[in-house]
Amino acid sequence: MQTKFAKRVTTASRSFTRTILDLTAQSSIISFAGGLPDAALFPRENIEKHAKELFKTEDNRLFQYSNASGVEALKVEIAKKYVNTTSAQIMLTNGSQQGLDLVCKTFLDEKDCIIVEDPSYLAALGLFHMYNATIKAVPLSSKGVDTEVLEVLFRDYSPKFFYTIPIFQNPTGYSYTLENRHEVVRLAQKYNVILLEDSPYEALRYDGVQTTAFADLLPELTIALGTFSKTLAPDFRIGWMKAPQEIISALTLSKESTDLQNSKFFQHICAKMMQSGELQEHTKTLIAYYRPKRDAMVNALHKLFGDSIEFVVPEGGMFIWVNFKKCADSMKLFDVAIKKGVAFVPGSVFFADKRVTSYGRLNYTNSSLEQIETGVKKLYEAYQKV
Amino acid sequence: MQTKFAKRVTTASRSFTRTILDLTAQSSIISFAGGLPDAALFPRENIEKHAKELFKTEDNRLFQYSNASGVEALKVEIAKKYVNTTSAQIMLTNGSQQGLDLVCKTFLDEKDCIIVEDPSYLAALGLFHMYNATIKAVPLSSKGVDTEVLEVLFRDYSPKFFYTIPIFQNPTGYSYTLENRHEVVRLAQKYNVILLEDSPYEALRYDGVQTTAFADLLPELTIALGTFSKTLAPDFRIGWMKAPQEIISALTLSKESTDLQNSKFFQHICAKMMQSGELQEHTKTLIAYYRPKRDAMVNALHKLFGDSIEFVVPEGGMFIWVNFKKCADSMKLFDVAIKKGVAFVPGSVFFADKRVTSYGRLNYTNSSLEQIETGVKKLYEAYQKV
Repeated sequence: MQTKFAKRVTTASRSFTRTILDLTAQSSIISFAGGLPDAALFPRENIEKHAKELFKTEDNRLFQYSNASGVEALKVEIAKKYVNTTSAQIMLTNGSQQGLDLVCKTFLDEKDCIIVEDPSYLAALGLFHMYNATIKAVPLSSKGVDTEVLEVLFRDYSPKFFYTIPIFQNPTGYSYTLENRHEVVRLAQKYNVILLEDSPYEALRYDGVQTTAFADLLPELTIALGTFSKTLAPDFRIGWMKAPQEIISALTLSKESTDLQNSKFFQHICAKMMQSGELQEHTKTLIAYYRPKRDAMVNALHKLFGDSIEFVVPEGGMFIWVNFKKCADSMKLFDVAIKKGVAFVPGSVFFADKRVTSYGRLNYTNSSLEQIETGVKKLYEAYQKV
Repeated sequence: MQTKFAKRVTTASRSFTRTILDLTAQSSIISFAGGLPDAALFPRENIEKHAKELFKTEDNRLFQYSNASGVEALKVEIAKKYVNTTSAQIMLTNGSQQGLDLVCKTFLDEKDCIIVEDPSYLAALGLFHMYNATIKAVPLSSKGVDTEVLEVLFRDYSPKFFYTIPIFQNPTGYSYTLENRHEVVRLAQKYNVILLEDSPYEALRYDGVQTTAFADLLPELTIALGTFSKTLAPDFRIGWMKAPQEIISALTLSKESTDLQNSKFFQHICAKMMQSGELQEHTKTLIAYYRPKRDAMVNALHKLFGDSIEFVVPEGGMFIWVNFKKCADSMKLFDVAIKKGVAFVPGSVFFADKRVTSYGRLNYTNSSLEQIETGVKKLYEAYQKV
């Protein structure tokens, strides 16, 4: 028999990144492809300590059904990250990817228009396709989005939201300037467009100073997504959303019908680590380990490739977005690189129209300094062959 | 400004059960309303033992990103519950509610028809509405569904699936006879309709013998949902789906774009408890505690209400579905009962058309024997007043 899937599924294809992850997981290939944190840095001792403590202090209600929006103590800690915010404006999700899903579910009717950066986060693009959204893309540079194009899109398409990753963007590592942010805010107000602000990397800043988030510049029109996957551990599956209370109420209803609630266990541990300052200390450790990795990759790229490639040194996050300008189609470079024993993500998959591009995304957080050195060398060898 | 939610959200309302749960959580009201397991029975010592063991034996990859379909060791154990089944036909979900969501996402286009039992599980009805499905209901009795009506619905509406809870149904506690199952299977084959079989309560059998699941009677057309929320603990958030591999692949893709994956931590603990036989032993303990609770409620209802109500003694599960036949609208009984200090769920909310009904759902697993005794007395007093 022919299985009758929904239209949204027949147009979806398996995430290319997942395919690369599977490919590299089982082999000796050095992978700059994933977006994984370094597992060696997970704060295992803290986690174990608080887990033991939970078993000692909490009664069996710890494992009972509870509310959909998450553990209050953690919501209180997260609210402190924002100006004039209470826990009623926060809800917890199964990683920030679920935040994206719940926003789509709560806001999108079929064919509704949304705006994305070009390029943008792969798994968000895939999800927006699943909701049969009309996707329009605004060019992104190292200073932020092209606000002239953004205004035309806001005016002509009345989008439901603009999906923006304004700090250490994925895949580019770019950050919006404060001027660019202010212009985006002005346009969002003028055309009444929600800013869906995704900031998974903001705590991983190696240079420069923190800029104000859309969540604080324009709280009444921003749904902010955050996560502990990059600062604590992905398996905790704790993301959050910060939005006006009316919107949080609607998102909570969607969460209830989607999966009732999340596990509270790691939410409690996360709350303890924030209350005690352990998470803040741990973030400093991460930065101390990740900054030299970024530097090692930047230096190796400069040293070997010289002017034959172009990239902007990211001030934080996990990625370098490299223009392999000698190679018009980075997918071809990928094929040769894999044979040489190094992987990265060809840039094409991050564009809404999957255009052929000379760009590629390199991750440096999940490789050792030695792997970075060796991997960039292999990549350079591949580059000489295309 | 006016927030522009999706149509699906503007038609949704907060789950009445959630409202009752909030109402009863903070008060001295005896609640027969929820569908909660008894928290006192959670196997806390086993959980703690295996958690400690995990910290000792597993390296940091325990907390890293992993695959979307779940921990292999647990899928292997679950596969053993079914005939001729391998782990490739199993995937894990964030509770079985997420299984329902992923099936909807993977199969339903707008206005697609689905069939539900009348009455049915409240949070499934809410979810199906969120997907703008066309919902048709087939009458349910204590022997199973009305297969004459089911055939007409299958023939006239070509539904995407029939959502069925064939054992200890929620809200009725009814189970399909084997004859009824075979007739449903015949119709599903004839009209090529998927059976979405939800069996959260099947392990909690107090009388009678296990009947064959649709998953084994008609594996090629059944998507079976299961959960550890009733046998282990709801906060584990572990449900599963069993289906043909082609369908599991599509559902896994949907899971990836929805929330990437679930936490592996409790999945490992659950696998250990199945491998060691601890879960099976624990289920016996649950039955030993729940059977007397069911008996206490059945006896108290018989003794006090006599012929003034009607109900079928459930062979397992968590609920008794009572026809308060003297009171045409059980919502009125609910209002008086709450004032007397006892809560239940008025039957209306479980029907697709929310019709006025004399039925109500009573839960007995989450009250003590004494509370059951006192609560039924209070309910009887309320019944005298309406």
